[in-house]
Amino acid sequence: MDLDDIIHSLKNFEGVTRKRPIRNIVSILNDAFSVSGKTHLGYGDDASAIRIGDGKLLLLAADGIWGRLMEADPHWAGYCSVLVNVNDIAAMGGKPVGMVNVLSIKSRETCYSVMEGIREGAEKFGVPMVGGHVHPDTPYDALDVSIAGIASEDALITSCDAEPGDRVIVGIDLDGRPHPSFPLNWDTTTHKTPEEVQFQIEVMSIIAERKLVTAGKDISNPGTLGTLGMLLEASDVGARVELESIPRNRSVKWEDWLRMYPGSGFVLTARPENVAECIELLESAGITASDAGEIVSERKLHLVHDNDERVLFDFERDIITGVIEEKI
Amino acid sequence: MDLDDIIHSLKNFEGVTRKRPIRNIVSILNDAFSVSGKTHLGYGDDASAIRIGDGKLLLLAADGIWGRLMEADPHWAGYCSVLVNVNDIAAMGGKPVGMVNVLSIKSRETCYSVMEGIREGAEKFGVPMVGGHVHPDTPYDALDVSIAGIASEDALITSCDAEPGDRVIVGIDLDGRPHPSFPLNWDTTTHKTPEEVQFQIEVMSIIAERKLVTAGKDISNPGTLGTLGMLLEASDVGARVELESIPRNRSVKWEDWLRMYPGSGFVLTARPENVAECIELLESAGITASDAGEIVSERKLHLVHDNDERVLFDFERDIITGVIEEKI
Repeated sequence: MDLDDIIHSLKNFEGVTRKRPIRNIVSILNDAFSVSGKTHLGYGDDASAIRIGDGKLLLLAADGIWGRLMEADPHWAGYCSVLVNVNDIAAMGGKPVGMVNVLSIKSRETCYSVMEGIREGAEKFGVPMVGGHVHPDTPYDALDVSIAGIASEDALITSCDAEPGDRVIVGIDLDGRPHPSFPLNWDTTTHKTPEEVQFQIEVMSIIAERKLVTAGKDISNPGTLGTLGMLLEASDVGARVELESIPRNRSVKWEDWLRMYPGSGFVLTARPENVAECIELLESAGITASDAGEIVSERKLHLVHDNDERVLFDFERDIITGVIEEKI
Repeated sequence: MDLDDIIHSLKNFEGVTRKRPIRNIVSILNDAFSVSGKTHLGYGDDASAIRIGDGKLLLLAADGIWGRLMEADPHWAGYCSVLVNVNDIAAMGGKPVGMVNVLSIKSRETCYSVMEGIREGAEKFGVPMVGGHVHPDTPYDALDVSIAGIASEDALITSCDAEPGDRVIVGIDLDGRPHPSFPLNWDTTTHKTPEEVQFQIEVMSIIAERKLVTAGKDISNPGTLGTLGMLLEASDVGARVELESIPRNRSVKWEDWLRMYPGSGFVLTARPENVAECIELLESAGITASDAGEIVSERKLHLVHDNDERVLFDFERDIITGVIEEKI
């Protein structure tokens, strides 16, 4: 395994590169964020947080399902629309409460498969799909799902609060398989019980309540290091990560593993004294976790392997989302 | 003006007929509604309601913007994505809290216009657009927006609680104009101040808190009588409505008026003793309102004009959404 090959593969990985247009859109919408004066956290995080009184925050997130996922396997697309949204809420330490969807239908058969997948996902993750909107006559099939969750104002996990000196914790459920119709999806949930899957979500809210981490994100399309890159960008810091410390199922080679979207996977940052308890909690939910490196002030993501070291992202030059996040 | 012409025009109005596929989708998703056991109200209403403790309900709604609206005027489409969602929450007596969107972009120019429209809408209605998801590379332009709101458990306006003997109140802001690029949009908001527009939203939560109505919906794509039809269907009742009692801006002829989507318009049902106070509140917000008829047990919507009477919808045979709603 060559470190240069990994760097090259990740820098050109579509899961990372297609995030770039976000920056322009955020700049236009900037005025629309803080309209009510109650927005606690805006764009750039997995979900946004709005104060609703009694020390509670409403978390809101939306995810669209990639067109190619809809084409490859509409049932799995429906299932994943639940999975990705629930993970967005979990990553912030919140409890998912309900979802709504907008479905655009060209083919009725596709529609039924998508709906079956949504039903299965809702039951697995224990979050109701409470409504939505149907476009019955579009020239394409598409599915967008939004989720709402509740968190405590004093126990929110953001992407923007990592600080130099923090440790980088990577937690991934290794008990899975590449999904047959979409090999970059590391499916860790379909063979597990609802109780097992739901505890992996709940453990993140326990970690949040105990204030064990300074920042966190769920690992999504950009893969483990792309997701960490987004967290570093939002926190305006860098990191030094030891490749071999990232938990991996050894049946998958590194280049593929780092581009995987796991059913349950998180990158977290924590002060050194909280690392052990955080790892212990993740592992109690079947999420293999380890201390994989440190947060540094220099705005670069260094990847270290066998006394060799390369810069994966230099945030002075490279842009993932271009969003440096701030609490409003 | 011929009553038969109006009946014919409304029965074949696409705003009404394209709602029909909802029924099949609801039947598949039925299991996914009540997953957490906290769903208070599911499909069929403007928004869904989920108990979140402290006597509060989280309202969640999603709306997709018609493709043809995106093509005709992307700025107006962005603005309307806010308007329609805010009205969904208002119709239930809730306070809108925040929105998220999923934007699928083919043309960058369209995207900027849409975003500008969203920004303008968020400022006008005072509800922040707090985040979302961008598909930067779809073969089409599309916009889906979800909204979250908060209501009290004991002051929720539903679509399903109209009862025989109730009066039908129609309230529409007559101070508007057909939108230049979409003549079936009765634009009542762009020329008003944010304060005026936001009070039209707030007045619905006052009506809810005072428990003045038994059911309600905001007038949307199906027009005034199509929207009333959906309410009757959900409540499993019928109505007898006097055409000339429906508030109308006389610059628009009846056939067009009844197919209009007003910026601020509601159909409500109320016990006779609460009608006057309800109308007074609506009119204090610039929404012209009147007692337009009565709820009857026979499941038909009768339209009355000049001692002439026709059946517009017979719910034993005609289907709008096919959803009879129940509190879960």
